[in-house]
Amino acid sequence: MEASSSGISLRNGALAYTLPFSPFIIPLLPFAGRKMALIVQKFGGTSVGSVERIQVVADRVLATKAAGHDVVVVLSAMSGETDRLLGLARAISQQPTPRELDALLSTGEQVTIALLAMALAARGQAALSLTAAQVPIETDATHTKARIERIDGERIRTALQEGKVVIVAGFQGITAQGDITTLGRGGSDTTAVALAAALQADECAIYTDVDGIYTTDPRVEAKARRLDRITYEEMLEMASLGAKVLQTRSVEFAMNYHVPVRVLSSFVDGPGTLVTSEENSMEAPRVSGIAFSRNEAKITVVGVPDRPGIAHAILGPISAANINVDVILQNVSEQGKTDFTFTVERNDFDRALQILRDLAPILGGAEVRGDKGIVKVSVVGVGMRSHAGIAASMFETLARENINIQMISTSEIKISVVIEEKYLELAVRSLHEAFGLAQGET
Amino acid sequence: MEASSSGISLRNGALAYTLPFSPFIIPLLPFAGRKMALIVQKFGGTSVGSVERIQVVADRVLATKAAGHDVVVVLSAMSGETDRLLGLARAISQQPTPRELDALLSTGEQVTIALLAMALAARGQAALSLTAAQVPIETDATHTKARIERIDGERIRTALQEGKVVIVAGFQGITAQGDITTLGRGGSDTTAVALAAALQADECAIYTDVDGIYTTDPRVEAKARRLDRITYEEMLEMASLGAKVLQTRSVEFAMNYHVPVRVLSSFVDGPGTLVTSEENSMEAPRVSGIAFSRNEAKITVVGVPDRPGIAHAILGPISAANINVDVILQNVSEQGKTDFTFTVERNDFDRALQILRDLAPILGGAEVRGDKGIVKVSVVGVGMRSHAGIAASMFETLARENINIQMISTSEIKISVVIEEKYLELAVRSLHEAFGLAQGET
Repeated sequence: MEASSSGISLRNGALAYTLPFSPFIIPLLPFAGRKMALIVQKFGGTSVGSVERIQVVADRVLATKAAGHDVVVVLSAMSGETDRLLGLARAISQQPTPRELDALLSTGEQVTIALLAMALAARGQAALSLTAAQVPIETDATHTKARIERIDGERIRTALQEGKVVIVAGFQGITAQGDITTLGRGGSDTTAVALAAALQADECAIYTDVDGIYTTDPRVEAKARRLDRITYEEMLEMASLGAKVLQTRSVEFAMNYHVPVRVLSSFVDGPGTLVTSEENSMEAPRVSGIAFSRNEAKITVVGVPDRPGIAHAILGPISAANINVDVILQNVSEQGKTDFTFTVERNDFDRALQILRDLAPILGGAEVRGDKGIVKVSVVGVGMRSHAGIAASMFETLARENINIQMISTSEIKISVVIEEKYLELAVRSLHEAFGLAQGET
Repeated sequence: MEASSSGISLRNGALAYTLPFSPFIIPLLPFAGRKMALIVQKFGGTSVGSVERIQVVADRVLATKAAGHDVVVVLSAMSGETDRLLGLARAISQQPTPRELDALLSTGEQVTIALLAMALAARGQAALSLTAAQVPIETDATHTKARIERIDGERIRTALQEGKVVIVAGFQGITAQGDITTLGRGGSDTTAVALAAALQADECAIYTDVDGIYTTDPRVEAKARRLDRITYEEMLEMASLGAKVLQTRSVEFAMNYHVPVRVLSSFVDGPGTLVTSEENSMEAPRVSGIAFSRNEAKITVVGVPDRPGIAHAILGPISAANINVDVILQNVSEQGKTDFTFTVERNDFDRALQILRDLAPILGGAEVRGDKGIVKVSVVGVGMRSHAGIAASMFETLARENINIQMISTSEIKISVVIEEKYLELAVRSLHEAFGLAQGET
């Protein structure tokens, strides 16, 4: 998905970028009030993108440590470094060996963890950098998208007891055989959450270039409001619907292991948004946010024979081509024929269309139509479970604005509609208003 | 030592640099005549300094493999990479933590080994990159200049049996506790020789930017000749006297473990120079080469009391300041006073002078004089052992040119003289001529 299609929460820290990166900023700590917590802090590539920014991170870590907490830091590679290494690999080989690609890319994080350890040592704070092999963080052997199988927290715990800050390389793992793996996109978030789970940390703080999760994209609706809390499930719906602050996988991990995750800005101080389980948010509003995705396309197979197995006949080959299908709709049958509609990501559209046209003989000569001019808009909130009428309010709001709904998809905590792209902003703003999400309305 | 002060063998491959780096060059292999040898090939930073050069290395490795040999490759970081990483470290901290510096610097070799493995895979040759931790190459915990303690060749042997080329990161090691170390300057040569010893390789080929060891520096004497063979001991004398092709430590290692080392050019084909034990060079000439060093300075303490312990009183504080002393000379005593003269590296000169001036009261008010305008010229050759009169010939030759000898130092296989710097070229050329070392004279 393109970044531009993100729905929730991308308030870019425009103000933050204009601030000097003073090493003397003492950040407002969400944990300042609690004593002796264990906090995992993860900083992404932009946050460690230069020597100056690494110094700022060192000050931030030091402030947390100075407040009496134990700190485990997880770092990504400096922004641009992974691309530089990928460029070298591609210049060497069209199809770099996955094992060697992982060995190559994992050097990026090894550089940043060593540099941050030096920066802390220069401030008189003992620190220990650990690669995945040194922790160890064991994964399966699926190179370039390995899954974490086991984390041994022993060496980290010992170092923490010695008063050290421990700095772990994100994104990487090691197989039982000792081969280096990487966890795939957003892997450093996963490392941080998995470490927090393994160490039973009190909180996993993810520092990003946004200052929290928003009720919708502030670039579309200026009245969008930062959420203090959001549940894992809502976060998952929002992530899969286009919000890109946290990788789906790391949220699932956090949910499964009950790790409280806080999304914060590296550049401006603030409480961020706490992603946690429902118990902690008793008074959840009915709707938490309006997500949307522009990265959608619709395909309709018109007039296919309405017989058992037709869905599989159509979607089997699409799935085999590794194309994800999202919303699926099958019309009421008329005279033994039916229309079958589904959505895919826009960059898979041409491929999906071609696959279905090649299948035409099998599908009884059905006509295949496509439409790239659609978007998906969703209302998300755990409160829906106990509040009737959310769907009705949503449809009523859209009807009032004369926005035609092409497809509908629901889950326990979200309702999505597919609409014509030109109505996107209108739909988001009117729904944001209708569900009382604007600033000052909580 | 500065590169410019090297004596033996620095024929820079000027011709080679003008050649296109065609991937189709099939190198002349020194081992082409023998079957199924195990060869360790080490390539330095310049040889892997770009994607194009890594491709050339891949072709060279492949040609050796195609000739039926097993190949273990040892690589340095891309030229410039270590300096880039050091620059980052110094920007972070004036005194980077040694442990973290090693973790940082070791990424350079991890990048090149992964890239070469990809390049070989792209040519259909199975390859396996291994970091020091993956071999493993165990060292002590002396960060930034660790010593190799143990190499486990098991994983390498298994991979070789599977027909793979194994590519090992030079310069790095791992402690028993799993911390990353580096071996210090020239460490990749040491890695290569140590691996060759551990694997009982038939030869350790060191690819450099020179095409072998020369009778003297061709920039000083155009008639300098590449040596086909040289003994470990001669190589050690030459290295310590200013030749920088192989690090002293790696030559010592090779000598102790009887590893035949071949110095070759990465850029031009040729047989290079074989560094081996004396048994293999039965007809050793009396003198193998003329080494020299410009990196010398002389300090004289005039009129110190001639009593037991005076040498220690002078050299103890020098040694404590980590300054290496080379040639030492004590004059015959006159009226209970003596002159004490020694040489140090030129960049230690000012420090050494200051130390002695501070010591003046202890030394009975002796005067301290210094001279940076001196050089050391040496005649090296195992043949000296069985040939009398080499020293006499040397002194006679210098006398004939009116070159005054200030100091003399001898070992079993070398004679060094300290002379005024302006006579350096004249001395080297006349000695090169006197001992019949010129091209065509063997």
